[in-house]
Amino acid sequence: MAGTDRTQKAILGGPTVILVNPQLGENIGASARAMLNFGLTDLRLVNPRDGWPNRKARSAASHADLVIDAARVFETTREALAEMQVIYAATARPRDMLKDELAPHEAALEMRAAFSRGQKVGIMFGPERQGLANDDIVLARKIISVPTNPAYASLNLAQAVLLVAYEWFQSGDVIDAGRVRRTLPDEPPLAKHQDVIAMFEHLEAELDSAKFLKPVEKRQRMIRNIRNIFQRASLYEQEVRTLRGVIKALSESREPIV
Amino acid sequence: MAGTDRTQKAILGGPTVILVNPQLGENIGASARAMLNFGLTDLRLVNPRDGWPNRKARSAASHADLVIDAARVFETTREALAEMQVIYAATARPRDMLKDELAPHEAALEMRAAFSRGQKVGIMFGPERQGLANDDIVLARKIISVPTNPAYASLNLAQAVLLVAYEWFQSGDVIDAGRVRRTLPDEPPLAKHQDVIAMFEHLEAELDSAKFLKPVEKRQRMIRNIRNIFQRASLYEQEVRTLRGVIKALSESREPIV
Repeated sequence: MAGTDRTQKAILGGPTVILVNPQLGENIGASARAMLNFGLTDLRLVNPRDGWPNRKARSAASHADLVIDAARVFETTREALAEMQVIYAATARPRDMLKDELAPHEAALEMRAAFSRGQKVGIMFGPERQGLANDDIVLARKIISVPTNPAYASLNLAQAVLLVAYEWFQSGDVIDAGRVRRTLPDEPPLAKHQDVIAMFEHLEAELDSAKFLKPVEKRQRMIRNIRNIFQRASLYEQEVRTLRGVIKALSESREPIV
Repeated sequence: MAGTDRTQKAILGGPTVILVNPQLGENIGASARAMLNFGLTDLRLVNPRDGWPNRKARSAASHADLVIDAARVFETTREALAEMQVIYAATARPRDMLKDELAPHEAALEMRAAFSRGQKVGIMFGPERQGLANDDIVLARKIISVPTNPAYASLNLAQAVLLVAYEWFQSGDVIDAGRVRRTLPDEPPLAKHQDVIAMFEHLEAELDSAKFLKPVEKRQRMIRNIRNIFQRASLYEQEVRTLRGVIKALSESREPIV
C-alpha cells in the first residue's frame, strides 16, 4: 500500500507554509485548501492584516478546516520561523540579492530530502501586492521562483502556494515509486489476441460479402488499415464482444450483393 | 534567447481551454489569469451559467483581459470542440470508463508533441461541482487527472486549470532541450471532432434501425462504450472515411427489421 503510506506521511507532516502579512482572508483560505490538496497541514500567519480568526478564510478554505483550525499566528517573521531549519522564500528574486533560485520542482526535491532527514522545513510567501520584503528573503536559504510567462508574471498568492505544494506532493511519487502512479484500480481484462483476430475475420468476411474490399490488389492494405484502428485502441474483452454485436447487427439481414 | 523563443511560441498558441458549463464568473476569470500566466490564450466557454460577458470574470482575471476578450461562447460541447483534433478531459476518471489517465506533466509532454506537429489540442474542464459528464469525457482521447491527497481531493476549477497550464509551460523547457521530440515525420492529418461525431451518428442510426441499441434504458451507455473505443484510437481523417465506408457497406442492403 505504497499510496496510502505516502499519503499518511504527507498528512502527518510536510513543510510548514508561512504567509507573511497576508491581506485577504480569501487568499488565506484558498492557500489552506491548496495545502491540504497536496498533503500539507502546517500553516503559520505572520501578522495577517484582518486579524485572526477570519470568517472569509474559513469559507474560502472549503472544508480544509483542519488546516485553518491548526493555523498559528505570529507577530513577526522571526517568531514564525523560530524552530525552522531549512527555509525557503517563494518570491521573485530581488535584483540586488545573491541567492540561489530554484524552480518549484527543484525545491521540492531538496525539501523532500531535508524533510526525510527529520529537518524542519518552512516556505515563506509574501503579502499579495508587494511580495516578500528583502529583510525576510534574506532569512531564507534559497529562493523558490515559479517560471511564468514574462509578459504576465503576476501569480496570485494562493496559486503560488498551490504550485509549491503540488510539486511537494509530486516529489513524493518520485521518491516512492520512481514515477507517477497511473492506477486503473479495477481494470477489466484486455482482450486476448485470438479473440481480436476472430473479430477482424468476422468483419472482413462481412466486408468481402459486401464487396467492400475491392479491388483485390488493395484488399490487404485496406484490411491492415482497418485492423490498425482497433489495435491502437487496445481493446478490452467486453469491447470485442460489443464490436462483434455491432458487426452482426449491421450485416445480419443484409442481402447478398450479386 | 531560448527562453524568449519558447515564450513567444507559447504566447502565440498553445492548447485551447474549454470550460464546460462553468458556474462562477470568478472561476472563469481566475482560469483566464492562470492561462495567461503560463502562455495559454485560447479560452472557450460552453454555456456559462451566468451568461457572457461577465463582470466578475473580468474582475477576477486581473488584467488577463486579452484572454477574456478573445473568449468564445458555444452552446454545446460539440460545437466548442468542432475543429479540435486531440482532446483531453481534465477530470477524475469515472469508475466505469476505460480510458488512459495521465498526470498533468505526462499530458503536457503529449500535448507539446501534438501541438508541435500542428494539431489542434483542446482540454475540457467540467463545471465546479459535478465535473465533466460522462458523455463529454467520452469525447476525449485521454483523461488528465491531478494526483492529490486522497483524503482531500477536491480541486477548485481555476486551480485545475492552473496546474495543467503550468505543466504545459514547464514542458516547453523539456521540448527545447530536445528530450521529448517524438517526430512522426509525415503524419497524416488527424480527424476533426465534427467528422468523428458525424461518423458516430451514422453508425448509431444504422444500429438503431437494426434494433441493436436495445433496451432503450441501456442505449446511452452502449453508445458511450462504442464511442469510447474509437476515441481511444485517435482517428485520422482517412480512417474516418474508411470507417464510413465500412458502416455503409455493412448496412447498405440490410433489410429493415420489423
